[in-house]
Amino acid sequence: MTHHLPTAADVRRAATRIAGHVHLTPVFTCRAIDTRAGAEVFSKAENLQKVGAFKARGALNAVLSLDSRSLARGIATHSSGNHGQAVAYAAQVVGAEAVVVMPDHAPTVKVDAVRGYGARVVMCRQSEREAVLADLVEANAYTVVHPFDDARVIAGQGTAVLELLSQVHDLDVVVTPIGGGGLLSGSTLAASTLGIPTIGAEPVVVDDAARSLESRTRLGPTGNLSVGDGLLTGIGELAFEILSAAGTRILTVTEDEIMEATRFVVARTKYLIEPSAGTAYAAIFANPDLFRGSRVGVVVSGGNVDLAMIGTWPRTP
Amino acid sequence: MTHHLPTAADVRRAATRIAGHVHLTPVFTCRAIDTRAGAEVFSKAENLQKVGAFKARGALNAVLSLDSRSLARGIATHSSGNHGQAVAYAAQVVGAEAVVVMPDHAPTVKVDAVRGYGARVVMCRQSEREAVLADLVEANAYTVVHPFDDARVIAGQGTAVLELLSQVHDLDVVVTPIGGGGLLSGSTLAASTLGIPTIGAEPVVVDDAARSLESRTRLGPTGNLSVGDGLLTGIGELAFEILSAAGTRILTVTEDEIMEATRFVVARTKYLIEPSAGTAYAAIFANPDLFRGSRVGVVVSGGNVDLAMIGTWPRTP
Repeated sequence: MTHHLPTAADVRRAATRIAGHVHLTPVFTCRAIDTRAGAEVFSKAENLQKVGAFKARGALNAVLSLDSRSLARGIATHSSGNHGQAVAYAAQVVGAEAVVVMPDHAPTVKVDAVRGYGARVVMCRQSEREAVLADLVEANAYTVVHPFDDARVIAGQGTAVLELLSQVHDLDVVVTPIGGGGLLSGSTLAASTLGIPTIGAEPVVVDDAARSLESRTRLGPTGNLSVGDGLLTGIGELAFEILSAAGTRILTVTEDEIMEATRFVVARTKYLIEPSAGTAYAAIFANPDLFRGSRVGVVVSGGNVDLAMIGTWPRTP
Repeated sequence: MTHHLPTAADVRRAATRIAGHVHLTPVFTCRAIDTRAGAEVFSKAENLQKVGAFKARGALNAVLSLDSRSLARGIATHSSGNHGQAVAYAAQVVGAEAVVVMPDHAPTVKVDAVRGYGARVVMCRQSEREAVLADLVEANAYTVVHPFDDARVIAGQGTAVLELLSQVHDLDVVVTPIGGGGLLSGSTLAASTLGIPTIGAEPVVVDDAARSLESRTRLGPTGNLSVGDGLLTGIGELAFEILSAAGTRILTVTEDEIMEATRFVVARTKYLIEPSAGTAYAAIFANPDLFRGSRVGVVVSGGNVDLAMIGTWPRTP
């Protein structure tokens, strides 16, 4: 874990480093979304990214920065899902061993996908994952790629918005979900070069980031669960500093708003997005006055979701 | 309804006629699909087409061919879903009134979508839809746009493959689902210009097309239901003639195979496809010897499906 604050220049260097190992994802638009939002919404389809999520960018930037001795010992991380797949994929790219600690509530599709990239999965309780990871690292001298509180990871995540800004001009604002804050802080660095503000979208049941930035004190995770299963973690130190300095605002949304927005986007666009990604649309739909008439960039964080869950929530089949 | 046999030239003229009113849909590829198929599969994403299905093409070609007096009286059709949306959309494009007769089992999402384009919906039993439509036409002098047994509709549907052939070169075969046969016969006309054979994919529970072409006698619909809810109708006269002449083969697949393939494609590509479209992938996965090493074009017929259905089948929530 590196603790210097990443910069916009780090995002540009990350883009060069990971080029060829990530997809230049398309930007989609949808009249039904625009009509409902009263805005022009440009969606950066990171659900079509390698591993089905933007997390491939950060993990690759971190892993491609490691020296050969570190790679030979292997890589480890903890993740509720997409970051685990991303580390597994990045390790596969460089031919390194990877171990991913995952919480018991992680969707089956995400656990299977991590294994599909050849990584070992260790399951444990959400609250114990730091300790389990620490034990594994002590025993095996793995290099840890943290899901978000790492300058290289944040710089990598920012490359999605760097691309978006080259694909769509004159955006007024960029909206992304926030969990640990890697995506939002990286996006904020990237967007700052053009003076474009960012806004975070967070499930209100896990609203530590919103309360942290409001109170100017970094709070721990709420410990609650959310349909936005990628957004449960508390905001990281680096993200807190970057977002505080930028004055980035966080909008909170309910579980119902998230699932309704997720289904709306899937039904109308025919792109599968996960509820964590739906959080950004929910925030836009719930705050029409804030976005009306604007050109809004959205980072669709991922598309890894159990179809049964998205179709039947809140009635789990 | 026009009864002359459409030609490849009609498909080219249709492409010119409907240009600007339909999307030039992308072609996607997916390593997981290719690995499983042992083939290179190029998917023409008509799930991203206007109204979420290729049917926009045929309906538009038919409606844009009508004179102003016919348009002033209005347009009517019957459809289990996507064609209804397509006619409603085409009528909206030209500012004409539209009435769509739909069977009681049509997915809610499709009924809502037809209404969303401003058309009137009349619900009835699947078996009675021809009679209900006839009554409406007699009373109101509507022009009927048949879902498939119409040369202009078939020519319009063929434009998807015409585009596909300009987007991907050197295809060995094109696979599409078959219900009434509009898509498959139009695709066959388009592909024939380059000498590329077509193959149809049909749910075995509604296998009238497969049995019709094998027995060289056009059979009526089975009357069964299928998860491929767009494929219940019997093969049309024009499609039967075109496919018989071309020697097009039909592969049948089970309901389980269709749903498994549909979920596989959605989970791995992040594109929402409907089970009718999944039928084509099921046929490819079930016949590896037929496709191994080939460059296979697939027309993804549509993406209009209830998420709960796709996620939980066979347990309806």
